[in-house]
Amino acid sequence: MDFSMFKNLLTKYDSFIITSHVKPDGDALGSVLALTMALKKYGKKVLPIINDEVPKKYRFLPRCGDVRPFIPEVDKAEVMICLDSGDPERLEFKRDLRDICQLVVNIDHHRTNSMYGDMNLVDDSYSSVGEMVYFLLKALDISIDYDIAVCLYTSIITDTGSVKYSNTTPSCLRILAELVELGVKPEVISREVFEKKSLESVMLLKEVLGTLRVCEDGKLAYMTVTKNMMKTTGAKEEDIDGFINYAREIEGVEVAIIFKEQENLKVKVGLRANEWVDVSKIAEEFGGGGHARAAGCTIEGPMHKVQELVLASIKKYLKEGFR
Amino acid sequence: MDFSMFKNLLTKYDSFIITSHVKPDGDALGSVLALTMALKKYGKKVLPIINDEVPKKYRFLPRCGDVRPFIPEVDKAEVMICLDSGDPERLEFKRDLRDICQLVVNIDHHRTNSMYGDMNLVDDSYSSVGEMVYFLLKALDISIDYDIAVCLYTSIITDTGSVKYSNTTPSCLRILAELVELGVKPEVISREVFEKKSLESVMLLKEVLGTLRVCEDGKLAYMTVTKNMMKTTGAKEEDIDGFINYAREIEGVEVAIIFKEQENLKVKVGLRANEWVDVSKIAEEFGGGGHARAAGCTIEGPMHKVQELVLASIKKYLKEGFR
Repeated sequence: MDFSMFKNLLTKYDSFIITSHVKPDGDALGSVLALTMALKKYGKKVLPIINDEVPKKYRFLPRCGDVRPFIPEVDKAEVMICLDSGDPERLEFKRDLRDICQLVVNIDHHRTNSMYGDMNLVDDSYSSVGEMVYFLLKALDISIDYDIAVCLYTSIITDTGSVKYSNTTPSCLRILAELVELGVKPEVISREVFEKKSLESVMLLKEVLGTLRVCEDGKLAYMTVTKNMMKTTGAKEEDIDGFINYAREIEGVEVAIIFKEQENLKVKVGLRANEWVDVSKIAEEFGGGGHARAAGCTIEGPMHKVQELVLASIKKYLKEGFR
Repeated sequence: MDFSMFKNLLTKYDSFIITSHVKPDGDALGSVLALTMALKKYGKKVLPIINDEVPKKYRFLPRCGDVRPFIPEVDKAEVMICLDSGDPERLEFKRDLRDICQLVVNIDHHRTNSMYGDMNLVDDSYSSVGEMVYFLLKALDISIDYDIAVCLYTSIITDTGSVKYSNTTPSCLRILAELVELGVKPEVISREVFEKKSLESVMLLKEVLGTLRVCEDGKLAYMTVTKNMMKTTGAKEEDIDGFINYAREIEGVEVAIIFKEQENLKVKVGLRANEWVDVSKIAEEFGGGGHARAAGCTIEGPMHKVQELVLASIKKYLKEGFR
């Protein structure tokens, strides 16, 4: 991808809003902050705007406190640069982007991008938008200082799952190497992004592992989180994220489920598959949805009834295949 | 480190035993297999010997089936190359190495290495012995094929915890990039090394999490694995690998310990630190060794006595710093 076209923008315009999607992850925040700092170094007026709270785990990012939600009638810029957002709705400005700026630049690596920008730099061969920002800075001859390096490093390791996912390329590994040379400490960033756990979440994990059941010749594994476990451990809803992988990663398991007891006699059901089962079909059967290998739904009823229903449906699929 | 001195060995000698420590991990196996394949390409007679079983999770490694324990009176070679082993005892040949070979070459990245070789290539600035073997092959002009690449990639990601540990350097990131270019699929290796778990190991994790204790204002966390837990869950020794991270990753924790009850009234102690404590000093105090942030020792005595001893020593260090 040729990022040099971006150069003309900087000759022509002086004020920029740089934004990304709500529920921002490491790539959204890392790329917004890196590009903001870079364009400021270039002498531009830049507002980093994200219409949501910055999650606690990313508050170590340099200049993170500058990111804030949009203030109507106050925030204006000639150009809005939208990062890592497949469609404009996920930015949650709740108005036409052209009411805020003259020009929309859309930089993204999602294949499903709706090409909503006046300029669209969209290419799914990049591991992360952080990687795209790296090449953008190179094209603009903006030097990468330590703070920018920390942000780009965070972008890339978040989106590649610490170089474990299939989007890990020689290019992004070499960028990580360069960023470490600029002073980034891999163990410090990794600890912030992947490791730090609360004692409460570890105690909840212990409780939830105690409910693990495996059936159907080891192909189906499920776990249960009750309201009582949440209360006694003091864990938070977000602490449950990723627990389902303990069931999914067991050798031989194809479908993993986590049942989370909610208020008002409802149960939230998380579904994962490893290789061939399309769990989105199971989720849809109960009014939910998702992807083939990761889906979910919420079902009314007491826990044992919901488990009965969902397990019966999955056992049927595992035996008969899909219709 | 200058690996070119290794060249003379290949001019002078024709038969090699390549070995590593018992309880082999990804770096031990990856480096033994990579160097074995490489020297065979160079036309040498090579025996890859490890005096232990190859853990199931590493059986995806190319030519892994060639690795076997030493057969006395049968296995002989001019040179023995010992990889990733800080002392000769961990190789468990149960005899003087010079009874088996004329020359011992010791290649390692542990600071506490006892320099037991006739030639010692020991340098703790390398992430892994796999990284050292990479530079060795470069010095010998042996080309890295796909199978060797898979082994070296496994070495490096095992020992850096998928580039999360402080030994992650620009050099090892660039080597990973080159290995991906040679065809290695990061997601495939990562799934084998980090994800696949046995049901028994998950059940053991639940038991071990139940023993988690946090003290010293949250700076010290420790867990216990008893022989009984191993028996009731049916888990294997290798399943314990990584459990210590559940203690280490708790917010605020500086030192994490796992106590593993062994046969004959012995306790194996695993030690990890996050930022400033040098746990190798604590391990050395009890006759063990390792790195500053990851070390271990084995202590005689019943569990409660060993815990008392080790906890007292660490509490002292946490309070007073190191002498």
